[in-house]
Amino acid sequence: MNLVDDLTAGDRRALARAISAVEDGGPEAAAVLAELQSRVGKAAVIGFTGPPGAGKSTLISAYITHLRRAGRSVGVIAVDPSSPLTGGAVLGDRARMASHIDDDGVFIRSLAARGHLGGLSAAAPFVVDLMDAAGFDVVIIETVGTGQSEVEIAGLAGITVVVFAPGLGDHLQAIKAGIMEIATVLVVNKGDSPLAAATAAHLYAALHLNAGGHREVPIVTTTATTGDGVGDLAETIAGLLSVRPPSPADAPRRLRRMLAALAAENLKEKLLRGTNPEIDSICDEVRGGRLGLAEALRQLARIA
Amino acid sequence: MNLVDDLTAGDRRALARAISAVEDGGPEAAAVLAELQSRVGKAAVIGFTGPPGAGKSTLISAYITHLRRAGRSVGVIAVDPSSPLTGGAVLGDRARMASHIDDDGVFIRSLAARGHLGGLSAAAPFVVDLMDAAGFDVVIIETVGTGQSEVEIAGLAGITVVVFAPGLGDHLQAIKAGIMEIATVLVVNKGDSPLAAATAAHLYAALHLNAGGHREVPIVTTTATTGDGVGDLAETIAGLLSVRPPSPADAPRRLRRMLAALAAENLKEKLLRGTNPEIDSICDEVRGGRLGLAEALRQLARIA
Repeated sequence: MNLVDDLTAGDRRALARAISAVEDGGPEAAAVLAELQSRVGKAAVIGFTGPPGAGKSTLISAYITHLRRAGRSVGVIAVDPSSPLTGGAVLGDRARMASHIDDDGVFIRSLAARGHLGGLSAAAPFVVDLMDAAGFDVVIIETVGTGQSEVEIAGLAGITVVVFAPGLGDHLQAIKAGIMEIATVLVVNKGDSPLAAATAAHLYAALHLNAGGHREVPIVTTTATTGDGVGDLAETIAGLLSVRPPSPADAPRRLRRMLAALAAENLKEKLLRGTNPEIDSICDEVRGGRLGLAEALRQLARIA
Repeated sequence: MNLVDDLTAGDRRALARAISAVEDGGPEAAAVLAELQSRVGKAAVIGFTGPPGAGKSTLISAYITHLRRAGRSVGVIAVDPSSPLTGGAVLGDRARMASHIDDDGVFIRSLAARGHLGGLSAAAPFVVDLMDAAGFDVVIIETVGTGQSEVEIAGLAGITVVVFAPGLGDHLQAIKAGIMEIATVLVVNKGDSPLAAATAAHLYAALHLNAGGHREVPIVTTTATTGDGVGDLAETIAGLLSVRPPSPADAPRRLRRMLAALAAENLKEKLLRGTNPEIDSICDEVRGGRLGLAEALRQLARIA
């Protein structure tokens, strides 16, 4: 029996080992990936993101409880920022998911974040595939923080839930950072706050102010600590999934997006720190007005 | 007389025209860039960034007043996010700089942001060069928002000032997003707030908690509206400049950083939306475990 056969048959230790293998790379990863191809495309992949303090982990935990009552199994991928400062806070949040630890229908795995800007680990799309192949009905990806990781999560997930706390102005920052454009569902959590309704109204206005933006993004108010609104959120997600159900085409799409992000990051790093004299000469040509931007970018890409 | 001769001689309309030319690209831009080479490297380039609401524009205005009293001339590049929502707020802030409008020693220019994540315009390093060639002692770049633009501004500026308002938790988000790592000076503005001291202490702790982080980043408390602390900020910046003064090597470095960012963005866009069948076949090889990540990234970069 190989690892992928075992994990497909429900062996959780095999799943954990396969995830470690694709995280590490190397020959065992290649074998796992080769076996994985035909077994993916059944899981609904849902991203949860939003600023720290919005109550994401508590909300995810309440959503998992809801899914478990409906008999669905759930894999969770949690991306820890590498910062030692925030690492602590995140682990604290994670403890709130402890209620699911003894439940064989829930599998939680942390992945290290890549680089200081918090990009997702390069293995993330494969970990999604592995959980998918392991038969989880739903795979949840949780990221913390603002910036790159939100945009990457939307590349992996079919549905991206962006969670805000009322007030705080985080939603204004999110609007500014383009986070709204990746959201398929907006959540105002801590719905028992007196500011919740105003924040929801702000988000509604922001969605409809966007130039040409007639994208309908549902806004759901929840109170994760009491469970209020979590059923509404689950129904909203189910409705979106019924319109665009999971498909075998999802896995290659996830991988392509991740490779595109990694290739770009890789190129940038090489151009910034590389000592290839060709880089300098291309830059000199641009500075001298002798080389146009488009052609310069083409030449620079070839250097990687 | 050509445009660059004119702007070097102090002709502000020539400077404005040259900036428009490099923003637009085209043959006139090439002529301007070719003339520019030998005339740059004297200006101190200072980036101001930080979350909305921190009072950046007011602080920049107070700093400009301080510089003008000391007889220094100042060029300002303000990057507007393209969002219509935030565009309005930014224009409102800009009005606070109106006191400098009739001063020939101050030149303010807005640049459009690139893309929805707010990256700097590709012309930004050239606009810095033009202001430098025009003889401004100090060139200030102001960006709004979180994410990519902060990191890019640090690539253009010799000194990056990150401005926070007390409380609000923005500094926690900034820590998470890696913004601290690009800061050369941290400012807690609105220093008359009762939360100012606690925020400064938080920032100090964050700097010293970072793994291996013994980088000394000065923290200055200001109240931009009254001018309190602005002299301290100016002295702090002057001290840093005396250690690493502007140099003719700065301009090529700025350009290289910008080209690296653009090449990366360009590659990502091509890999995400491109229809080249080679992209699919490389992705398939990776999914099948037959192609390693490093080699895949090399092959993908060549596709651009």
